[in-house]
Amino acid sequence: MTAPPYSQLLIGQLLRAPAGSDPDQTIHDGAGRVQTYRQFHARIGQLAAALARMGLGRGATIAVMDWDTPRYLECFFAVPMIGATLHTVNIRLSPEQVLFTINHAEDDAVLCHADFLPMLLPLLPRIRRPARLIFLTDGPAVLPPGFAGEYESLLAAESADFAYPDLPEDSRATLFYTTGTTGDPKGVSYSHRQLVLHTLAVTAGFGTVPGKGGVKRDDVYMPLTPLFHVHGWGFPYVATFLGLKQIYPGRYDPARLLALIAEHKVTFSHCVPTILSMLLDAADAARSDLSGWKVVIGGAALSEGLARRALDKGINIHAAYGMSETCPFVTMADMVASQSDDDITIRTATGRAAPLVELRVVDPQMRDVPHDGRTTGEVVARAPWLTAGYLHNPQGSADLWQGGWLHTGDVAHMTANGTLRITDRLKDVIKSGGEWVSSLALENLASTAPGLREVAAVGVPDERWGERPVLVVVLAGSEPVDAAIKQRLSGAIAAGDLPKWAMPDRICVVTSLPRTSVGKIDKKLIRQMMAKGEIA
Amino acid sequence: MTAPPYSQLLIGQLLRAPAGSDPDQTIHDGAGRVQTYRQFHARIGQLAAALARMGLGRGATIAVMDWDTPRYLECFFAVPMIGATLHTVNIRLSPEQVLFTINHAEDDAVLCHADFLPMLLPLLPRIRRPARLIFLTDGPAVLPPGFAGEYESLLAAESADFAYPDLPEDSRATLFYTTGTTGDPKGVSYSHRQLVLHTLAVTAGFGTVPGKGGVKRDDVYMPLTPLFHVHGWGFPYVATFLGLKQIYPGRYDPARLLALIAEHKVTFSHCVPTILSMLLDAADAARSDLSGWKVVIGGAALSEGLARRALDKGINIHAAYGMSETCPFVTMADMVASQSDDDITIRTATGRAAPLVELRVVDPQMRDVPHDGRTTGEVVARAPWLTAGYLHNPQGSADLWQGGWLHTGDVAHMTANGTLRITDRLKDVIKSGGEWVSSLALENLASTAPGLREVAAVGVPDERWGERPVLVVVLAGSEPVDAAIKQRLSGAIAAGDLPKWAMPDRICVVTSLPRTSVGKIDKKLIRQMMAKGEIA
Repeated sequence: MTAPPYSQLLIGQLLRAPAGSDPDQTIHDGAGRVQTYRQFHARIGQLAAALARMGLGRGATIAVMDWDTPRYLECFFAVPMIGATLHTVNIRLSPEQVLFTINHAEDDAVLCHADFLPMLLPLLPRIRRPARLIFLTDGPAVLPPGFAGEYESLLAAESADFAYPDLPEDSRATLFYTTGTTGDPKGVSYSHRQLVLHTLAVTAGFGTVPGKGGVKRDDVYMPLTPLFHVHGWGFPYVATFLGLKQIYPGRYDPARLLALIAEHKVTFSHCVPTILSMLLDAADAARSDLSGWKVVIGGAALSEGLARRALDKGINIHAAYGMSETCPFVTMADMVASQSDDDITIRTATGRAAPLVELRVVDPQMRDVPHDGRTTGEVVARAPWLTAGYLHNPQGSADLWQGGWLHTGDVAHMTANGTLRITDRLKDVIKSGGEWVSSLALENLASTAPGLREVAAVGVPDERWGERPVLVVVLAGSEPVDAAIKQRLSGAIAAGDLPKWAMPDRICVVTSLPRTSVGKIDKKLIRQMMAKGEIA
Repeated sequence: MTAPPYSQLLIGQLLRAPAGSDPDQTIHDGAGRVQTYRQFHARIGQLAAALARMGLGRGATIAVMDWDTPRYLECFFAVPMIGATLHTVNIRLSPEQVLFTINHAEDDAVLCHADFLPMLLPLLPRIRRPARLIFLTDGPAVLPPGFAGEYESLLAAESADFAYPDLPEDSRATLFYTTGTTGDPKGVSYSHRQLVLHTLAVTAGFGTVPGKGGVKRDDVYMPLTPLFHVHGWGFPYVATFLGLKQIYPGRYDPARLLALIAEHKVTFSHCVPTILSMLLDAADAARSDLSGWKVVIGGAALSEGLARRALDKGINIHAAYGMSETCPFVTMADMVASQSDDDITIRTATGRAAPLVELRVVDPQMRDVPHDGRTTGEVVARAPWLTAGYLHNPQGSADLWQGGWLHTGDVAHMTANGTLRITDRLKDVIKSGGEWVSSLALENLASTAPGLREVAAVGVPDERWGERPVLVVVLAGSEPVDAAIKQRLSGAIAAGDLPKWAMPDRICVVTSLPRTSVGKIDKKLIRQMMAKGEIA
C-alpha cells in the first residue's frame, strides 16, 4: 500500500482545482493584453513543449530575466512541471552579480526580456556553460544575436497537450539568489513539495481571516513584489491555485499601477514599505481612491507612520514576515484579533506563526527567552517549506541550520500568546553601553512625526559607549522634524517604553536612503557612509 | 540537502499554529464542561504518557468507542502522535460486526464509554488479541471487570510534557471500517501525511469562500457527524488546526443539540440529511432560530426539498461530496458562484473538485464521457489523501484502484466548467428497458411535494423492462402525496429533464425507511423488503 506516484505534491497540481474549474477567469498584463485560464493552461503546455524541443527537461536549470508579467507566471509552472529548475534572476543586481548567479546556478537557458538585453549581451562571452537564449519582447520579434528563438513564436509552433513527466516531489523546482550585505549572492532553492505546502499554508493562513481581510476566491490579485523576489513571496502560486483574476503590471510605474488598480478593481497586493510609500505619494497627487485594497507588507518592518497613512486612505494594511530562506511565509499579523482599522499595534506586529510553522525566540545558547513581550532573542524556525540550505555552500547551510533550527538573524520578543515583534536585524542592533537599542523601535516612533518621509536608525562607533544611535532622515518637505521626533522619543522614554540611552545623539538629514536590490534600506552602506563622512 | 525529520507532515503539527497561539480559546462538551486549548494540549500530553506507560506506542492499534466528545478529540491527536493507530469503532454496527472489526484491526487497547459496556463486555471473551481496556465515564469512576484504568484518573497521574517520537509521515494514523451492503466491513486507513494534507485542502477549499460561507477563524464549530465516521469527515482536525471554539455534543439528542447551538452560537456544522431533517423538525416544534448557521451536507444527496426547508430557516446550507475511501473531501458545492440563497441548483450540486483533487467521469472502458452536463459515467478520482486500499484485502484494494484511479462507485455527469452532479450509486441505478433512470433525480423531484417527509426510489425486477422504478415514501402527516409527486415528475418529463419511462409504476407508503449504520437510506434492504412483499 505504498503511495502511488500521483499522490506526490507537484506544482502542476496547483493548476488542477479549483482554478481548473473556472476556465473563463482572466489573467492580464499591464498593457491591456488578457488571457483566460484556459489559454493560460494551454500556453503552459506549449511552453513546456518548446523547452522540451530544445532538449531542456529534468535536471536543466532555466533562468528568467523579466518584469512581473503573465509570461513569467507561465514559467513559474511550465519550467518546474517539465522537471527543470526555474532560476528567477534578480535583475536589480549589478551585471557582475547577475553573471555570478548565472554561472553559479549553471543555467542551461536564459529567457530574457528586451529591456535586459543591455545587461545580458555583454555578459554572454563570460557565461561558462553554453546556454540557450530565448527572447521575450512586446515589440517586433527580431532575434538578437545568439538567441535561439522568440517566446511567442516558439509557443505558437507547439501543441498545448504536453505530457508532463511524473516527478518525485523532492525535485528542485526553483532557485534564486539572496544578497546579504557581505560576500557573494547565495543560492536558495525549493522543491515542488515545499512550494505546494507553502501555497497550502498561505491559503490556510490568509484564507480563513474573517471579515474583509485575507485572501478569498473573489479577490483580484496584483503583485507589487518582483517575481524574482522569493517567487513574488509565493502569492502568484496562491492566486493561480485559487483561480483569482490576476494582473501582472510589468515594470513598476506608480501612475500605471494606480491606473491598473482602478481599472481592474484590484483587491489584493503585497509589497515592501518603499513601494507602498511611493504609491501613496502618487495617489495623493492623483487623488486616487484606494479604499478596499488589501495590502500585505513584508520585506521590512511596517512602521506605524506608514500604516496610519495607508489606513487613512482606506487601505486594509497589515504586516507579514518571512525571508528568502523561508519561502517566505513565517508569520502574519493577527488579523483575527484585528477587526478594526485602529488596531495599529496588531497590524504592524510581526504577528503569529503561520500554519505548520514552529517559532522560537532564543538566546545564543538556544535557550528560549521568556515570552513576556519584552525579552529579545534571535528568531529560529521550523516548517516543512524552509530551504534545506544554500547551493554549493555547506558552511553557510550549516550556519543557517545550527542546532536543527533555521536561524533568521532577526531579533524579536514574543508575548505569552505567541505574538512576535521583530525589533531588529541581529547585525543592525545598536549596542550602547552593553545594552541593546532596537533600531526598529526608534524608527517606528520617529515615523509618525509630521514632515518625515523616511527614517533609518543606525549605530555609530563611540569610544565610551561602544555604539551610539543616530537617525538618518528624509524630509517630506522643507520643515525640520528634529523637535517632533525628539518629543516622541522623550515620551516613550518617560513611559518606560524605551531606555533613556536610546535617545539618538544626532539626526542627519539626507535626500534619499540607500537601498538593497530588493528595496530594503541598506544600513550597512549608511554606516559606511557615516564613517566616511558622506552623511553628517 | 535531504529534508530533515521535522519537515515531515505529522498530525502533531496541526496543533502548532495558529491554534497553538490562541491558548485561551475553549472546547466544550455537551454537559457544560469546558477546557481551554492550553488544557487540551496538556491533556493530549497526559493521554500520550498514560498510553505509553501501558506499553502502547509505535505500531499499536487503539480503539475508541465513544460519542462525539472532547475526549475523543484528544484521542484524535494523542494516539497518532505516539505512533499508534486510532481505530474509530462504529458503535452503530451490530455487536458481531464490532467484534469482527476489533479482531480484524488487531486492537491492542479499547477505550470504551460506559454507554457501550453492554455491547463490549459480552464480546470480551471472543476478542482474540489481549487488549488493554480503558474506561470512559461521566459518572463514578468504578472500573468494570477487566479494565486497566479510568481515563481521567490515568491522565491525572501523568505530566503534560510528553516527548513525542519523530515519525515518518507515511505512518498509519487512523483506521476505521466501512460497511458496504455486502460482505464483511472493510478496513480503511490513513497516514499522518494524508490527514495533514486533507486538513490543509479542506481549509483551502472552505476557508477561501467569499462572503458569509465557508469556514473562518471566528467560527464556532459543532460536529453532527459521528467521529467514527471518516474522522467526523475530517472537520475536527480542521477546527483544531484553525483554533476554533468547538462544541462536542455527546449523544445526539435533538433538543439538546438545539440548546447547544443557541447557547454557544454555533456557526458551522456538518451532517447527513437525516440528522438535519430531524433537527428541523425539532426546531419547528421549538420555534428555534437557526439563522446564520452554516451546514455542510454529505454522506447522501442533498435534495432540493430539504435544502429549501433549511434555507427558509435561515441556514446557509450546501452539499459536499466524499466517501470513506477518500478521507473524505472530494468536491464541494460551488459557493463562490452561489452568493445568493436561491441558488438551490448550485447548493445541492455535488459541486467542483476540491483543491488538489483530480476528477474524471468515465465509461466502463475508462474513457472520459462528454462534459455536457447530461452524459453519465462513474466518478473516479486522484488526490494525495485517498486511501491506498483496504486492510488485508488485496483484491478489494485492486478493484478500488482499477486503472490507477480510485473508483467511487458513484454515477454522475459533469458540465464543461467542471461541475459534478451525482445521479446515483452504481448499484442503485434503475435499469429500465436498457436505459438508466437516476434514483436521485426521482427522489429530488419528489422531495418538494408538500406533505412528504422522505422518499427513496428503487428499481424492482420487471419481466419486460428488466427493472421498473418504484417510490417508497414516508408521509409528514396523513395527506396523500401521490398526485403532487406525479405532477412534478410529469412536469420534468414534459420539460425533457426526465425520460418518460422514469415515471414510477407505484408509490408505496411506509412509516419509516431502513437506514445503514451511518444514517444513509438502505436501498438494498428496501429492495429485499419489496421482493418479500414487506413493502407493497
